[in-house]
Amino acid sequence: MIRRDFIKNGTLSALGISLLSTTDTFGHLFNPSERNANGAAKNIIFLVSDGMSSGTLTMANLLSNRMYGRESKWTSLYHERKVVRAFMDTASANCMVTDSAASSSAWGGGIRVNNGSLNVNADGSHNTPILQKFKNAGKKVGCVTTVPITHATPAGFCICNKSRSNQQEIALQYLPLKFDVMMGGGDKYFNPSKRSDKADVYSQFEKASYKIVKTKAQLLATDGQKPLLGIFGDDALPFSIDQRNDKQHQELVPTLAEMTVKAIELMKDHPNGFVLQVEGGKVDWAAHSNDSSGLLFDQLAFDEAVEKAIEFAEMDKNTLVIITTDHGNGNPGLFGEENSDQKFDLFQKFKHSNEWVLNNIKPNASITTLVEMIHDAQGYTISNEQAKELLSHYQKLDGTGLYNARKLPFELLGKIQGDYTCVKWGSMEHSADYVELAAYGPGSNLMKPFVINTELHDLMLNATGVKV
Amino acid sequence: MIRRDFIKNGTLSALGISLLSTTDTFGHLFNPSERNANGAAKNIIFLVSDGMSSGTLTMANLLSNRMYGRESKWTSLYHERKVVRAFMDTASANCMVTDSAASSSAWGGGIRVNNGSLNVNADGSHNTPILQKFKNAGKKVGCVTTVPITHATPAGFCICNKSRSNQQEIALQYLPLKFDVMMGGGDKYFNPSKRSDKADVYSQFEKASYKIVKTKAQLLATDGQKPLLGIFGDDALPFSIDQRNDKQHQELVPTLAEMTVKAIELMKDHPNGFVLQVEGGKVDWAAHSNDSSGLLFDQLAFDEAVEKAIEFAEMDKNTLVIITTDHGNGNPGLFGEENSDQKFDLFQKFKHSNEWVLNNIKPNASITTLVEMIHDAQGYTISNEQAKELLSHYQKLDGTGLYNARKLPFELLGKIQGDYTCVKWGSMEHSADYVELAAYGPGSNLMKPFVINTELHDLMLNATGVKV
Repeated sequence: MIRRDFIKNGTLSALGISLLSTTDTFGHLFNPSERNANGAAKNIIFLVSDGMSSGTLTMANLLSNRMYGRESKWTSLYHERKVVRAFMDTASANCMVTDSAASSSAWGGGIRVNNGSLNVNADGSHNTPILQKFKNAGKKVGCVTTVPITHATPAGFCICNKSRSNQQEIALQYLPLKFDVMMGGGDKYFNPSKRSDKADVYSQFEKASYKIVKTKAQLLATDGQKPLLGIFGDDALPFSIDQRNDKQHQELVPTLAEMTVKAIELMKDHPNGFVLQVEGGKVDWAAHSNDSSGLLFDQLAFDEAVEKAIEFAEMDKNTLVIITTDHGNGNPGLFGEENSDQKFDLFQKFKHSNEWVLNNIKPNASITTLVEMIHDAQGYTISNEQAKELLSHYQKLDGTGLYNARKLPFELLGKIQGDYTCVKWGSMEHSADYVELAAYGPGSNLMKPFVINTELHDLMLNATGVKV
Repeated sequence: MIRRDFIKNGTLSALGISLLSTTDTFGHLFNPSERNANGAAKNIIFLVSDGMSSGTLTMANLLSNRMYGRESKWTSLYHERKVVRAFMDTASANCMVTDSAASSSAWGGGIRVNNGSLNVNADGSHNTPILQKFKNAGKKVGCVTTVPITHATPAGFCICNKSRSNQQEIALQYLPLKFDVMMGGGDKYFNPSKRSDKADVYSQFEKASYKIVKTKAQLLATDGQKPLLGIFGDDALPFSIDQRNDKQHQELVPTLAEMTVKAIELMKDHPNGFVLQVEGGKVDWAAHSNDSSGLLFDQLAFDEAVEKAIEFAEMDKNTLVIITTDHGNGNPGLFGEENSDQKFDLFQKFKHSNEWVLNNIKPNASITTLVEMIHDAQGYTISNEQAKELLSHYQKLDGTGLYNARKLPFELLGKIQGDYTCVKWGSMEHSADYVELAAYGPGSNLMKPFVINTELHDLMLNATGVKV
């Protein structure tokens, strides 16, 4: 009470000092004990749940509460008043609805570029990516993701390329950067037997003194003497819901939280600090395929990475943690219908994602077999008509039954599942929705309540006092 | 710079006073110049855009920017750092997805009740509605809305009833309360020729010394000598997009902003202050029918009411303004497809809502006529197949072609329109999404960053220092 009486009694104004006059109602730039002045942060951990609509954040928290009896870390940071919140406008240079390349470039290069581009402007000029700036300033830098490490979100922090699709080229662009930790999926862009040019990119990284790891055990055994390239899957890593029900995956593939912990461990003792980007990339992939269990359990896996980052930052006290998404996707929601709570609780019984289900349907399966298979994998019983409709799509396939995201009936299964879970989708595309943004630690109060995505670029430089 | 140097130099700690030690990173309870202590507010204006998903707030701002070259008032309050923001959990007592009765009751009675109930608990006990508390404390109180004044959101602040559907009864429940301003639609619940019991509720209000107004002109001429009942439509008021293209509506029906201004004018000079609820009720109705232009222009009409409320509060300096929604609905979004910006710009040419279009389709219309009619009303050209599909629904009607929300093909028109505007919907029902909440003025900093809907009840009482 001393504090408020002090203010009420006008002692400050008696001192003739307008201590409070320039602040807003958010109290920004207010708390010196958290050192929110420019240059206050030594490290940054920037966490992106890719393609996270507002409903995704809500539903992951509801699921966590009902399944584990605890709220998500992200939500708890609000309850515990540990973070500064903002709304973020995510548009790209040429569209109100951004893609992940343009949005990562907005943060990474500080300038909005057209969708599909990685830090290359419409006139062909390049914007220097932020991890290059931080590396040049003497910090260790890195990226970890659940999708290929060459994918748009990590790439936008690392390199310039006129097209995000050039993932083979992007793998080679990473080589001369000598970044300290690069982890995720994407073997197909490094492995000579899979690359169209047969280049052995792994060997090139080894020659450049990188330590290469391809399994969780190898990762955990890494001591950080060398920069690290960790590739744990051909393309993206498995969905969390599938991984937790697959022993081989569990043994071989690290979780996003495990990669995050390792990346921090490998960089935290650097005298000049570090900057790490962490992406929950398959939240976006799940949304693109209206795969609700893929989405919710990957959002919770992302949340574990948030928890680890905050744990470190709370101990370290020199680390700015930014938690956000690059754009909405699909705008899923738990919608109010009869017994929607009970229907939503079905997710607690799910063993597999829709991706897993659709890839495991045999084109010649009987209706009974399909109904049973979906019941085993996801806990609800579809009607014979729904099974028939699903199977009809397999007749149209090329007969091999091989995975083909464009041909498998993701939209249909998403719709059918919505009848049983009350989770439904507006689209399979990104949305223009303003998105949620939270910041913890030194530098966090540089954040304004409404942020344009590009402003985070300067915020990161200012928070660390890095001049470029 | 004096302020920060002052802090940096440690003068405060030299004074031995832990001035900043108990604050969170939001700086809550910090700004004495805004008197955020308990009891600091004399008046409250509580504005509810009913059923506003996050995408609704975003898209209304995008439309405002592109159509009028200015951002929405709500968004500008963030840019200008004038409000405290929070996330709100909107669940009801029996469901994660609330209805408007339970959500208004959560604010109004301070206790979560089951969906459908107005401040009546499962055991039959009643929770006193907040406007009764404020009235008893000597304040003037009122509600304005674009839907019937007997509808769930105003009712939850005013009365107890086991069912929101009892709107005839609710009209009678308002009578003994002697509230000062009650305005909206709902003639059918007051008019003896429309009520099933033939009761002349208007006469009863007149006998209770109310001034009754039924047109905009009558409203504007009201001087406030008597309490006011204003009823401007049979059921809900027209959608804003329809009103602006209908001279009769414009002449007869006040906008939400006009009702808000009048309500403030009639109560602002009361020595004990006032509490006013303002509801943009048709935002929710538009979402229930996936009516995107109904939605966006009613959200902008709500935003005008926000502007008027803030204008008053900025001048008055004694008014807490709360701006929020009771729950998401439909989770619409502007989704990324080819030319999505240009497609979204089509809304600028819209003359009518989907409700208007569907009610104006003649069951025996030709395909050509229908295609032309929709082009005239909404600026895009549907295909012959789409026209055929729409018309086929009219063959199934009872032949009268009369308005029937359950039979008209709202969902289909919403889907068809999405092809041309890139605005699409996940559902026609409420969602569990956490929602946006903003507060301005004295008492605003009592708001926590993550709010349970019931907490706003106590916040309003604390902000005004009203004890019950």
